[in-house]
Amino acid sequence: MPSSNPKIVVIGGGTGSFTLLSALKNYTKNITAIVNMADDGGSTGVLRDELGVLPPGDVRQCLVALSEYPKIRELFNYRFEEGGLSGHSFGNLFLTALEKMTGNFAIAVEEASKVLDIVGRVEPVTLDKVTLVMQGSSGNVTRGEFQIGQANFGAEIRPEMLLDPVPSLNPKARQAILEADAVVIAPGNIYGSLAPTLIVPGMSEVLNQTKAKKMYVCNLVTKPGQTDGFNVNDFAQEIERFGSFSLDYVFYNDSNPDPSLLERYAKNEEYWVGKGDSTGGYELVTGEFMSNVFVASNSSVTDPIAASRTLIRHDSEKIALAIVTQVERQE
Amino acid sequence: MPSSNPKIVVIGGGTGSFTLLSALKNYTKNITAIVNMADDGGSTGVLRDELGVLPPGDVRQCLVALSEYPKIRELFNYRFEEGGLSGHSFGNLFLTALEKMTGNFAIAVEEASKVLDIVGRVEPVTLDKVTLVMQGSSGNVTRGEFQIGQANFGAEIRPEMLLDPVPSLNPKARQAILEADAVVIAPGNIYGSLAPTLIVPGMSEVLNQTKAKKMYVCNLVTKPGQTDGFNVNDFAQEIERFGSFSLDYVFYNDSNPDPSLLERYAKNEEYWVGKGDSTGGYELVTGEFMSNVFVASNSSVTDPIAASRTLIRHDSEKIALAIVTQVERQE
Repeated sequence: MPSSNPKIVVIGGGTGSFTLLSALKNYTKNITAIVNMADDGGSTGVLRDELGVLPPGDVRQCLVALSEYPKIRELFNYRFEEGGLSGHSFGNLFLTALEKMTGNFAIAVEEASKVLDIVGRVEPVTLDKVTLVMQGSSGNVTRGEFQIGQANFGAEIRPEMLLDPVPSLNPKARQAILEADAVVIAPGNIYGSLAPTLIVPGMSEVLNQTKAKKMYVCNLVTKPGQTDGFNVNDFAQEIERFGSFSLDYVFYNDSNPDPSLLERYAKNEEYWVGKGDSTGGYELVTGEFMSNVFVASNSSVTDPIAASRTLIRHDSEKIALAIVTQVERQE
Repeated sequence: MPSSNPKIVVIGGGTGSFTLLSALKNYTKNITAIVNMADDGGSTGVLRDELGVLPPGDVRQCLVALSEYPKIRELFNYRFEEGGLSGHSFGNLFLTALEKMTGNFAIAVEEASKVLDIVGRVEPVTLDKVTLVMQGSSGNVTRGEFQIGQANFGAEIRPEMLLDPVPSLNPKARQAILEADAVVIAPGNIYGSLAPTLIVPGMSEVLNQTKAKKMYVCNLVTKPGQTDGFNVNDFAQEIERFGSFSLDYVFYNDSNPDPSLLERYAKNEEYWVGKGDSTGGYELVTGEFMSNVFVASNSSVTDPIAASRTLIRHDSEKIALAIVTQVERQE
């Protein structure tokens, strides 16, 4: 195993992967981002509906995170605000145009990678068109990632997640996991963003087969109606359940946020993820992983972090360092 | 003056400039395309209306013509065909996103030039927002390039053309003309595409001031309702009238097209431009400048030549060679 420049795979969706990849690329050039392909909200949803393309949104964020070219990064995240283009980010249009032109999303991602001059690679978890489906314990079915993201699970927590139709794992994603020193599940929405990567058939097999250490960066706050009252082990268990594999390390922030910030979150019924008493078979890696920089949610639309929902953020530099430290400890 | 790699400025609009620039770049790397900014039809018109940007369409075609990067060329001309993006070419969206992002169309063009890795430069004739206005002899006014392009002049031929509001000449366009060895007016719609470049205040002055030889590549066919019965000298006179300058060379195709092709044109009331009897103060350069390759108008939408209106084309390689030959004869 390499003593530096470790091979790290990051599995996830949009913002969580974005922040993690942005920091990790300073520690290693051997990064593969494996990306959720069930997104169907916003600009991505419109492009899927109207043009029949694969969802570009999460892929775009990962590409931008790994890009070394500031102006093109900014351009890719530029979002039109008026007229018929309103809501579309330029990068989504770029990937969509390339896919329509070549008939192949993988080629579109490859071309975009060149234009953006990215570190490492971005691999869609599947190249099949899929819809995310949630099935509660009473048999209630909710279809579509956007709808699932909005859902209040009520009593039917820890639902089953399915992909329709059943997709194939992208062979390049599989290969990257097999060759990795570490596979990191990024923070993000468990049911909307992470489950649709972990439940792709073949993912469980390769996660169990690889020699890579399996890591998970736990969310900082709970999601109302979905993960209320979850502590870090509840999150980790859900990740293990969807991927049918065992985590080696779970990264948990144990710094205390400012009470006034917690209050603001509480108004939205979002609460700090607790440490709890029980842990699973993994090692819990604790640290002050919270960022002291708070992003105003109404700042620049070209910043995907700022444009997203929550103000409390991981300190991605510290998380990246902690991940790389664990990887190197193995060697 | 240089014995090779002459400094050539091409003034014009969309397709005419595209074909000429595509060929000229094989003869010299010192090319500046000065581009009409009055376009308001199609995708460009929608972007102007909805987003308040400068018209990207003709600039895009010139950028693509000068690009050395086939895949990005293709991408820039890719036109969405469905949904809310329908009719927009990717390159137009690229320029629009960059202009909205930077607030500056000139920066957008510069960035696009880098991404496309172009030979030479592309300069908008003005960076002011203008509407083209046509005024017939009876005082009839038609506003907007698209409307003017559709107009039947009736008895009011050789109309006055104006820009509203009165724009400033782009100083970089001015400088390029001053330093040029040759300034070539590309073939194109006299009233819709060429007049709005030539009537920009300051253009006449610099055309008279420069030591460059002034050349004009005359259209092959007349436009019904606008230039019916025009011979090459009629076209040249209109060019000289709008720019208030004297041409040194006019390139005129004297090869005979296939009679069946002329018949097809005649159905649309388009006729071969005649040589006529009189000439002006310029030298008429004749040659077999017509292409024997006929482009089907319904072929690939990514090809701006194919997507445009007429089937008879200049042989741009021969025209380019004739232009460069004239330039070098001067030295």
